[in-house]
Amino acid sequence: MKRTHHCNELRPAHIGQTVTLSGWVHSRRDLGGLIFIDIRDREGRTQTVFDPSDLPKDLFDRAASLRSECVISVTGKVRQRPAGTNNPKIPTGEVEVGVTALEVLNMAEVLPFPVDDPEVAAKVNEELRLQYRYLDLRRPEMARNLRLRSKVATATRVFMDEQGFLEVETPTLFKSTPEGAREFLVPNRREPGTFYALPQSPQQFKQILMVSGVERYFQLARCYRDEDLRADRQPEFTQVDIEMSFIDREDIYSLIEGLLKRVWKTALNMDIPTPFKRISFEEALNRYGIDKPDTRIGMELVDFTEEFRASTFKVFSGAIANGGVVKALNAKGLADATQGQIETMTEYAKSFGAKGLAFIKVEKGEWKSPIVKFFNEAEKVALTQKLGIEEGDLILFAADQWLTACEILGKIRLYCADVQKAKGKLTIPADRFDFLWVVEFPLLSFDKEQNRWYSSHHPFTAPVADDIPLLKTDPKKVRGQHYDVVVNGVELGGGSIRIHQPDVQKTIFEEVLQIPPEMVKARFGYMLEAFRYGAPPHGGIALGFDRLIAILCGTPSIRDVIAFPKTAKGTDLMTDSPAPVEPKQLRDLHLELKVPKKEQP
Amino acid sequence: MKRTHHCNELRPAHIGQTVTLSGWVHSRRDLGGLIFIDIRDREGRTQTVFDPSDLPKDLFDRAASLRSECVISVTGKVRQRPAGTNNPKIPTGEVEVGVTALEVLNMAEVLPFPVDDPEVAAKVNEELRLQYRYLDLRRPEMARNLRLRSKVATATRVFMDEQGFLEVETPTLFKSTPEGAREFLVPNRREPGTFYALPQSPQQFKQILMVSGVERYFQLARCYRDEDLRADRQPEFTQVDIEMSFIDREDIYSLIEGLLKRVWKTALNMDIPTPFKRISFEEALNRYGIDKPDTRIGMELVDFTEEFRASTFKVFSGAIANGGVVKALNAKGLADATQGQIETMTEYAKSFGAKGLAFIKVEKGEWKSPIVKFFNEAEKVALTQKLGIEEGDLILFAADQWLTACEILGKIRLYCADVQKAKGKLTIPADRFDFLWVVEFPLLSFDKEQNRWYSSHHPFTAPVADDIPLLKTDPKKVRGQHYDVVVNGVELGGGSIRIHQPDVQKTIFEEVLQIPPEMVKARFGYMLEAFRYGAPPHGGIALGFDRLIAILCGTPSIRDVIAFPKTAKGTDLMTDSPAPVEPKQLRDLHLELKVPKKEQP
Repeated sequence: MKRTHHCNELRPAHIGQTVTLSGWVHSRRDLGGLIFIDIRDREGRTQTVFDPSDLPKDLFDRAASLRSECVISVTGKVRQRPAGTNNPKIPTGEVEVGVTALEVLNMAEVLPFPVDDPEVAAKVNEELRLQYRYLDLRRPEMARNLRLRSKVATATRVFMDEQGFLEVETPTLFKSTPEGAREFLVPNRREPGTFYALPQSPQQFKQILMVSGVERYFQLARCYRDEDLRADRQPEFTQVDIEMSFIDREDIYSLIEGLLKRVWKTALNMDIPTPFKRISFEEALNRYGIDKPDTRIGMELVDFTEEFRASTFKVFSGAIANGGVVKALNAKGLADATQGQIETMTEYAKSFGAKGLAFIKVEKGEWKSPIVKFFNEAEKVALTQKLGIEEGDLILFAADQWLTACEILGKIRLYCADVQKAKGKLTIPADRFDFLWVVEFPLLSFDKEQNRWYSSHHPFTAPVADDIPLLKTDPKKVRGQHYDVVVNGVELGGGSIRIHQPDVQKTIFEEVLQIPPEMVKARFGYMLEAFRYGAPPHGGIALGFDRLIAILCGTPSIRDVIAFPKTAKGTDLMTDSPAPVEPKQLRDLHLELKVPKKEQP
Repeated sequence: MKRTHHCNELRPAHIGQTVTLSGWVHSRRDLGGLIFIDIRDREGRTQTVFDPSDLPKDLFDRAASLRSECVISVTGKVRQRPAGTNNPKIPTGEVEVGVTALEVLNMAEVLPFPVDDPEVAAKVNEELRLQYRYLDLRRPEMARNLRLRSKVATATRVFMDEQGFLEVETPTLFKSTPEGAREFLVPNRREPGTFYALPQSPQQFKQILMVSGVERYFQLARCYRDEDLRADRQPEFTQVDIEMSFIDREDIYSLIEGLLKRVWKTALNMDIPTPFKRISFEEALNRYGIDKPDTRIGMELVDFTEEFRASTFKVFSGAIANGGVVKALNAKGLADATQGQIETMTEYAKSFGAKGLAFIKVEKGEWKSPIVKFFNEAEKVALTQKLGIEEGDLILFAADQWLTACEILGKIRLYCADVQKAKGKLTIPADRFDFLWVVEFPLLSFDKEQNRWYSSHHPFTAPVADDIPLLKTDPKKVRGQHYDVVVNGVELGGGSIRIHQPDVQKTIFEEVLQIPPEMVKARFGYMLEAFRYGAPPHGGIALGFDRLIAILCGTPSIRDVIAFPKTAKGTDLMTDSPAPVEPKQLRDLHLELKVPKKEQP
């Protein structure tokens, strides 16, 4: 009995045909002496009917023994459903199959959770879902996510191929380069004391491919990071990794805009407008308090440094005298914020080192706040005008060094938007996607503890040409040729034009980042050498593929778009991995376990 | 100066246009006061001309300082080449660019080996090529291989997508399952003493995906094997991994035939005939002495067991009395084999446990061999007729247990074909591809040392339904639903219909393979459990992607189709990996090095 049709295929046109369907028992109803079984496969479901007056007793009995998720094949004749019993909710709802033969391919025990009821399934705890991932993936939402992921991966590849890019596979067994995130190590059995490392990205290989003359490289690349996993990180993840030669930033922008246009069309049948808006790092911080602004939310930050320079409110004027700024935002309609909500926001401010959070509630025509008494009329007029203050608003302030003040209000802004959403005061359509390029990041950031500069992005990022002279005089002001692409406040990806001149790269490593020359040689020597044999100018970008799919699927968790994700502790609950290994396996690797005594039970 | 055309684009139609080309200095010739520079990019090359009478001195001097592989941009006017100087070997050979501006993007030092001369480059030792892989990849042959690999990968994905398959990414950080090849381990920092392992294949995950209802899965999957690398193995390699539900072997055959048809068309513009021939394991051994026959070579093995059962030559009749067979092959035209060649073949025979190698040289109408005297007339007639013996032939014999006799002659057959090729007595066209399905492998093989049965393929392979009763009575006779696809004597891939019934799988693990139940539970417990919740019948296959591309590229080494391959010792000579790591990295993993004293210098 071999499948002749899938379970979303039969229509009135098939009436009279004998067909065989294979799939899972989606539901069974015993009604008026008949057994109704909805059989389900990947494509959909079809109603089948077992009538004891037409069937041998043992066949009918076998049908009666079936429970949900048993695997069966049925053969029978397609017929019109009896009048009034059509099911308009499913495409096969006008017909049914009158069964003449049944093959039970596999029985199913009672499931630990149901897969056919989205409401029940959504409440199942995630650990149970991960342990029985094969059942979780049968749920229509998860099946759709996997399907969309595959579709978008293929569309991405076809687009990149059309643009002349070659997909080149780079090694997973790489070398440890401890500059970035913590790496997974792989002991090398052949040479005791040596290790491979799993790559955090194919960064070095893709630059080497440019030196190789590939010119246009891409890869859907698996990357690895042994970090303490934040809520939505995975130890292994996939990125759309891209590198091009003989190009500038504009080429990357238009390539990625074209790619995302294709992806949105493929996945959601939506035409997204291009080119994307661009905003500098500085403007993003100034207006949204974050380098990945969600521009679907209003509530922009407003600067009041000039207005409060001579304020009698010393918290403000003092911060300004200290080189800082005063900024504020108007959380529209949140004057009724609860004490708890105000405390949450105050904690955000404190987490950035602020002493507290100044705010004004505008209620019944009054500005309620202990700080209002310090404001003169001109200050009040400025606030009212620049913030558009109205009845019911909540005004929040930050007075601090520029970056800190921005970041405090940036975090509060997102929180206020969540509160507005929960109260129904802010509604964002599910099909709104605000794309943005964030550009002109600072090339370097200063690490106070270690008293040295480090790369904001990575040490291969080229400085903006005009700023190169500042590298040795005022590193803080050097802008990098770095860019991030952001959608709805989520960083979808980032990249940069790279340094291709061996002397500039060496200066960055040794003089600016102060990495000892012998360490530079050990870690990056081969790259510096490669650059001496004719390296073209090049640049690239990487997009987080899991994140991209999660956005397209409208799910907040990348675990919902990865077939077999790991928990926040890096474990796979289905296979019970990682697990102990045989002592011989460790001996072969010239390793022994050294568990600190205090950690032993 | 931004590229307006690539270096394989200019034609007479462009004459008069001002263009900018970017790329590498392919060659420089100083001739009649002019400098001729061929500029090369990924697509091809174009001649440019620097004329000192048209150019500022400093620009001309800069051109004079360029050497091979410097990276430049040039702007100039396209013009007809002077009469008689066209280069018909390159598509841009009718035109040249009269340079008006030059930008030197990067200089190049003298290369360790030339990339522009295929004959010189082919002689460069492979270690040097691997150390400077970025230069090696600039060679046209290598660039073509990377391009073809990318093209075939995309074609594969598009085909599989058309056939309704979803590409699903499975984890790289998996669990150790020490049944198969030795695995790479990845220590888990969070739980001392536990490890991930890199997967040898996504076998378990793809079967779980079938239980998940995906029905049609594929993946270009990276796989890992920590084995002592044979000549042409890599520690990480890529396979086209496929699994389907509700199917039988015929579905796999036609799918793969369709896929390979598409691949050959895409890569070589060749139409390969389908369906492929099929041959059973037993017939393959009987006729070719190997389970992956190269049918482009004749020289089939012929059985003479009946003819020699009563032979006075005791080596033959004794082997037969002992349950063995006598087989022979006619190495056409090799009667002039050297003593050295005969010794090589004798060593092959001995490596399988034979005492020596019986052979007959047919020279000057005579059968030259010490064993001919034992043959009676009927035996000689049988040999002559069944082997088609003629002047100049070399007849080789094996008398041993069936499998051993087949394997001895199988190995000798391939060696003789090589000798014939070297002598010009055998020519195989480069575009001949003999595809073949090898089927009906034995499900189990017996390990004499361990005195137990083990899986010929892997323990998830389903037995042929008719043979299930033999599992407990005569395991040797049980055929597996396993299949290999072979081209020109190379195993391109293999797969099987899997066991989907939890009780059959448990029987195989515990009773047939005698794996202790607690070990079955620890390693495969989750699969056996998954099979209890409605597992559909399923099967699949995996094709070696590196091998496939090597065949299409006509190169004997998979290292030539992998961008960054490792040496036989598993090292990457370019990045100098694997390498020692910081002591802190090991401490974080709760490990310490334990180098056996005797191995220390």
